[in-house]
Amino acid sequence: MLQYGVLICGVVPVRKPRDIEKALEAPVTCLELRLDYLEADLAEVRPLLEHAVARRVVIFTVRRREEGGQWRGDEEGREALYRKLLELNPHYIDVEAESPIIGEVAKIKGKAQLIASRHDFEKTPPLDVLSQWAKKAAAVGDLVKIVTYAKEPGDGLRVLSLIGAVEKPTVAFAMGPAGAYTRVAAAALGSPIMYVSLGEATAPGQLTADAYYAALLALGITPSGGGLPALREALDWVDGGLMYLLKKRLEVCRDMGRLKKDAGLPIYDDVREAQVLRRAGDFKQIFELVVQMCKAVQLVA
Amino acid sequence: MLQYGVLICGVVPVRKPRDIEKALEAPVTCLELRLDYLEADLAEVRPLLEHAVARRVVIFTVRRREEGGQWRGDEEGREALYRKLLELNPHYIDVEAESPIIGEVAKIKGKAQLIASRHDFEKTPPLDVLSQWAKKAAAVGDLVKIVTYAKEPGDGLRVLSLIGAVEKPTVAFAMGPAGAYTRVAAAALGSPIMYVSLGEATAPGQLTADAYYAALLALGITPSGGGLPALREALDWVDGGLMYLLKKRLEVCRDMGRLKKDAGLPIYDDVREAQVLRRAGDFKQIFELVVQMCKAVQLVA
Repeated sequence: MLQYGVLICGVVPVRKPRDIEKALEAPVTCLELRLDYLEADLAEVRPLLEHAVARRVVIFTVRRREEGGQWRGDEEGREALYRKLLELNPHYIDVEAESPIIGEVAKIKGKAQLIASRHDFEKTPPLDVLSQWAKKAAAVGDLVKIVTYAKEPGDGLRVLSLIGAVEKPTVAFAMGPAGAYTRVAAAALGSPIMYVSLGEATAPGQLTADAYYAALLALGITPSGGGLPALREALDWVDGGLMYLLKKRLEVCRDMGRLKKDAGLPIYDDVREAQVLRRAGDFKQIFELVVQMCKAVQLVA
Repeated sequence: MLQYGVLICGVVPVRKPRDIEKALEAPVTCLELRLDYLEADLAEVRPLLEHAVARRVVIFTVRRREEGGQWRGDEEGREALYRKLLELNPHYIDVEAESPIIGEVAKIKGKAQLIASRHDFEKTPPLDVLSQWAKKAAAVGDLVKIVTYAKEPGDGLRVLSLIGAVEKPTVAFAMGPAGAYTRVAAAALGSPIMYVSLGEATAPGQLTADAYYAALLALGITPSGGGLPALREALDWVDGGLMYLLKKRLEVCRDMGRLKKDAGLPIYDDVREAQVLRRAGDFKQIFELVVQMCKAVQLVA
């Protein structure tokens, strides 16, 4: 078995207190709380932010619009919000390396680790530009985060090559479907943090936590650390992966049901069903239930 | 959804006829039949080889010892075997670009596509050496296949960068646990063929078909093509992924059972069990069965 010390971080658009409560139910050890989405007053969510910091590894991020965020205020207001958030002693804060406030926030950050980030939601620049971005971010941050958009899969190799290229721990991967593989490759290459959605994606190509667990387990990667906690976390990963694939099976059967109806084909296929159950071997009882659910879905597709 | 035109190829060490029969039951569209493992006479397996060529996309390979194979004869004998295998009109044959017989086999191959391959089971050479290997293979093969061993994850990026670098379709990935991610990345980057085990791994880090399906599905990749055949193949992928994760769950529970026994901890944990079933939501009935199987495993771990 392989273990990567990667922090799997659920990204949470925080609009109101309920968003944090729900996130704390998710089986992830780290949360990035995106306060640029905030609609409620900070005072309303503050107790839950404190609660989150006490129970998870937490990144506070107030992402500016220029880099895909929802912040509607000015830089002064954003800096003021970061100041208040730093009072809650988060483990990390994420500020864009190019933004005017990063110098000031770096001074007042205290024990929080500063992730100096750079995002390009449209393209992946040439390697020399990417390397400059990484150097600039490394000069001010404790960690570097470079995330670009992959127009084609090859773009991903360029951004992945940043991991280990500067002296600070570096998160680097490519957004978009063509870059999906980089989200697993980056963990293998040593990215300290990887980001997953807990239901609402905040970037193109972002995988759900369940899908990400399935991908890591499939490649033989299990939670790091040892003993019962790591085994419990592994169980959470497996159960997440199982639910991801069960939902996928329902979707495929729904599409099959529609296609069969359009083509006037019979919905049920006893030969195929027998083949599936034979192949299931020791898990036959489980697959009988799964097939039952899928037949219902095909019926009403 | 993403679709890659990658051929997922089950690698089959062929010792005796039964090995081919079993392989033909596996839900893969392509088989690499490794005749360097052959213990029976060719005449004994010939009818099944013909049967396989009629029902799957088939690669015949007689891998020489220098590149990780089991062939015990000399090059003359190996060439003679390729000649006989070519009579069965396989879709592909794989011969090492560095081997003395590749020139002759290239002349007699007929319609079969020649995969000119190069394997390094110990390391991943520098990029300039890899590029030379790829050019040399491209000069003689219809496809290029370069597979090296990743001592560390970064080696994988070098070998992946060969895909698309020469004018022939190129299979390129890294063996070993540190290179596991390249097996998914290569499919994304355009490798025409990816290799999985159907139970017996023939290379370090080789994933089973079920694990590979889980990884591809998790990254949003589904079988290419359309209509009912692609949906049926997708269902096979999902079921393979489910079985991979179910086995993984049994393994984790077995390890948990042992650890709890050693630590004198109670085997069953009702709070955890309730949490798992609550999280399962609509799949609660399925997870009740899964938990039951896992509790049995923990009991006798």
